[in-house]
Amino acid sequence: MASTDKPDRESIKSEEAPAAHPRRSNYSSVHVALRFLLFAASVTAVVVMVTAKQTEIVPVPGLPISVPLEAKFSDSPAFLYFISALSVAGLYGILTTLAAISIVLKPAYATRFLLHFALLDVLMLGIVASATGAAGGVAYVGLKGNSHVRWGKVCNVYDKFCQHVGSSIAVALFASVLLVLLTMLSVFSIYRKIPK
Amino acid sequence: MASTDKPDRESIKSEEAPAAHPRRSNYSSVHVALRFLLFAASVTAVVVMVTAKQTEIVPVPGLPISVPLEAKFSDSPAFLYFISALSVAGLYGILTTLAAISIVLKPAYATRFLLHFALLDVLMLGIVASATGAAGGVAYVGLKGNSHVRWGKVCNVYDKFCQHVGSSIAVALFASVLLVLLTMLSVFSIYRKIPK
Repeated sequence: MASTDKPDRESIKSEEAPAAHPRRSNYSSVHVALRFLLFAASVTAVVVMVTAKQTEIVPVPGLPISVPLEAKFSDSPAFLYFISALSVAGLYGILTTLAAISIVLKPAYATRFLLHFALLDVLMLGIVASATGAAGGVAYVGLKGNSHVRWGKVCNVYDKFCQHVGSSIAVALFASVLLVLLTMLSVFSIYRKIPK
Repeated sequence: MASTDKPDRESIKSEEAPAAHPRRSNYSSVHVALRFLLFAASVTAVVVMVTAKQTEIVPVPGLPISVPLEAKFSDSPAFLYFISALSVAGLYGILTTLAAISIVLKPAYATRFLLHFALLDVLMLGIVASATGAAGGVAYVGLKGNSHVRWGKVCNVYDKFCQHVGSSIAVALFASVLLVLLTMLSVFSIYRKIPK
């Protein structure tokens, strides 16, 4: 049924806006590029966070001995949430890259795809932004400590661990910005299809 | 210039989709309601967080004395970010409520308004979701502590403070969900204006 009303829509569009086709093709390429970038950023953030491990000799409070203690991402529930969210974003990134490529090759269903892209992008943005916020909030406490509640700094001892965590959060922030741009691009692409 | 090509668009739409007008009016009412709800939720979250203050007598570590110590939202940078973000969301909520009401009264510019709503909603979602995540991450450490880095629990002492913080974060999460719904609604409203 969709294939029968498609020629009508295409003919209406070509009558009303003859310049729409080449421009839409440009948007699609940007879509593919941004979505692949989202995939790459999410995977990078996950890998950098997972490889954040550091063992240091730290003194035991109240005793005159020191023991080796390992800092790893799984010590904090916020970092676990971060990894889950960014893994989902990576999977979403590669799947929608393939979908965006399919639009470039076969533009007939572009509008419907764009709608679903926009709706799903918004959901993913909520998940990735909150995960970045949660990891960032906890990492900031690790960096600066909080004297009011006697939470000590961690990053003066586990410097490499904190570098990994910080880089991972920065890349995730970039992924969030990409998702904002992708949603805006999808919305704008849909908006442009309304005949003026 | 916008007013000259507006009658054309209206006439095209009424020929192609005679049932579009009453339905769009329904969407606008939902828009107004959801945006007012966003304003109310944001203001509630800010007020509940700002009023989260509790003074308790706590022992000083290493000394045989106890002193009164006040827990307040400004002790944590994550909570300050939370309050800034939700205040902006509240302001945005009331401004866009007024804009959505203006659309109900004068639907001529509805499409352009919807585009700007969708683009701005996405930005606000990123800000509110990350703020909720940051406050939630820090509050979770306060609730459960983290034995790996010797961050003690706070909520067993400052119970009322934590109740306020928890409620505020729950309301902010609701505001984030509202923003997701609002963006989806704007996108879908724009999509529906494409002639089938």
